[in-house]
Amino acid sequence: MRLYSYFRSSASYRVRIALALKKLDYDYAAVHLVRNEQLAPAFRAVAPAQLVPALVVDDPERGELTLTQSLAIIEYLDERFPEPPLLPGDAPGRARVRALALDIACEIHPLDNLRVLRYLQRELKVSDEDKDRWYRHWVETGLEVVERQLAGHAQTGRFCHGDRPGLADCVLVPQIFNAKRMSCRLDHVPTVMRVFDACMAEPAFAQTQPSACPDAT
Amino acid sequence: MRLYSYFRSSASYRVRIALALKKLDYDYAAVHLVRNEQLAPAFRAVAPAQLVPALVVDDPERGELTLTQSLAIIEYLDERFPEPPLLPGDAPGRARVRALALDIACEIHPLDNLRVLRYLQRELKVSDEDKDRWYRHWVETGLEVVERQLAGHAQTGRFCHGDRPGLADCVLVPQIFNAKRMSCRLDHVPTVMRVFDACMAEPAFAQTQPSACPDAT
Repeated sequence: MRLYSYFRSSASYRVRIALALKKLDYDYAAVHLVRNEQLAPAFRAVAPAQLVPALVVDDPERGELTLTQSLAIIEYLDERFPEPPLLPGDAPGRARVRALALDIACEIHPLDNLRVLRYLQRELKVSDEDKDRWYRHWVETGLEVVERQLAGHAQTGRFCHGDRPGLADCVLVPQIFNAKRMSCRLDHVPTVMRVFDACMAEPAFAQTQPSACPDAT
Repeated sequence: MRLYSYFRSSASYRVRIALALKKLDYDYAAVHLVRNEQLAPAFRAVAPAQLVPALVVDDPERGELTLTQSLAIIEYLDERFPEPPLLPGDAPGRARVRALALDIACEIHPLDNLRVLRYLQRELKVSDEDKDRWYRHWVETGLEVVERQLAGHAQTGRFCHGDRPGLADCVLVPQIFNAKRMSCRLDHVPTVMRVFDACMAEPAFAQTQPSACPDAT
C-alpha cells in the first residue's frame, strides 16, 4: 500500500492511525500542501479530487485501486482487515461512532482546512485576527457538541465508544492536534481531552502524529 | 420512526430520499432553522448536536434511539433494512460510493450551510455579494471534482454507481437543489446533471424534495 499524506493534514493523520491500529505496512508518499503539490498533474492523475489522503491498495477483487476520503478509506480498511475492528459489532453502535466521526469531519474540519483559510484571506480579505477567530469558533463550538455526546453517555469508555480505540478516535485526535496548534480553548471539553490523553498513550496514535512523519519540518 | 427535518436542509433531504427509497413510513417533525428552532431546549433534548436531521427509531436491540448525522443515519437504515441496498455489495464499490458522498458532505456542503453564512455576514462583516461568491465558489469547484470522478468512470451508470440509486445519489441531489437555488454554474458538470435528471425521474427523489415537504413555505 502507498499512502499519499501531508504530515499536518488531519485527514491524513486519521488514516495513519487506522493503518497503525491494524498494523498494516505502507509506503509514505509526501504531498506538500503548502507548496500546492496536490494540484500538480502527477498527483491529479493519482487522485482526481486533488486532496490528501489517498491510499493505493492492491484489492483482491479489483487490483490496484486508489481510495480517497479518509472516512471511506478507514471503512474499507475495516472491511478488508477486520482485526482489530474500528467499528462496533452492533448497528446502533456503528451509527453512534459514525455520527461522532462526522460531527468532526463534517461540522468542524471542513471550515478550517488550508484552502478555506486561504480563500478567507485572499478572496474575502479577512484579517489574520478574524481568520484565527473563525478557526477557533468552529473548533471550540464543534468540540463542545462532541463533548455533550461523550460526557455521561453509557457507551463512552476509555475511548469514544467503549474501551478500544475506533473510527471516532481516529478522527478526534487529529482535530485536537489542530486545536492545540491554533491555541483553541479546550478546558470546556474535559471528556474529549480525557479520551485524547488515552489515545495518545497508545503507540498507534503517538507514532503517527504529525511531528513523527517523514515529511515533518 | 420520527424524522426531525427542515424542508430546505439538504442533509435532511438526503435522509428523506433514503427513507423513500426503502419505502419506510415516518412522522415528519419540522424544525425551522431560520427561526432557530434547532437551538431550543426541547430539540436539544432530542439531538444534543442541535442539527437536523435527527431520526428517532425503535431499535430491536436498544429500543428508542435518536440517530444523527445524515450519512450515519443512511448507513444504519441500509444495515437494518437492506432492500433495496444503498451501498454496493463489494468493498471497492462501497469505498467509491462513500468517497463520492463525502466529496459533497465534507468538501462542499459544510461551507455553505446557514450557520456558516451567518457567521460570515454577522461576525466577519462579509458583504452579500462576497457571501454569494463564497457559496458559488465551493459549490462550483466541489461539483467539478465530483464530475471528474463520475465522467468516464466504468462504474458510473444511470446513477452515480451503476443503475440503481444509492448513497451517493442521496447526497448529490440535495446539493444540486442548493446549487440551483443560489444560481450556481452547472454547465461544467454534465455527468453530474445527467445523474441528477435520472434521480429526479424517480418518485423517491421527487416526492421528498423541499417544495413537497409539509413545512415548505
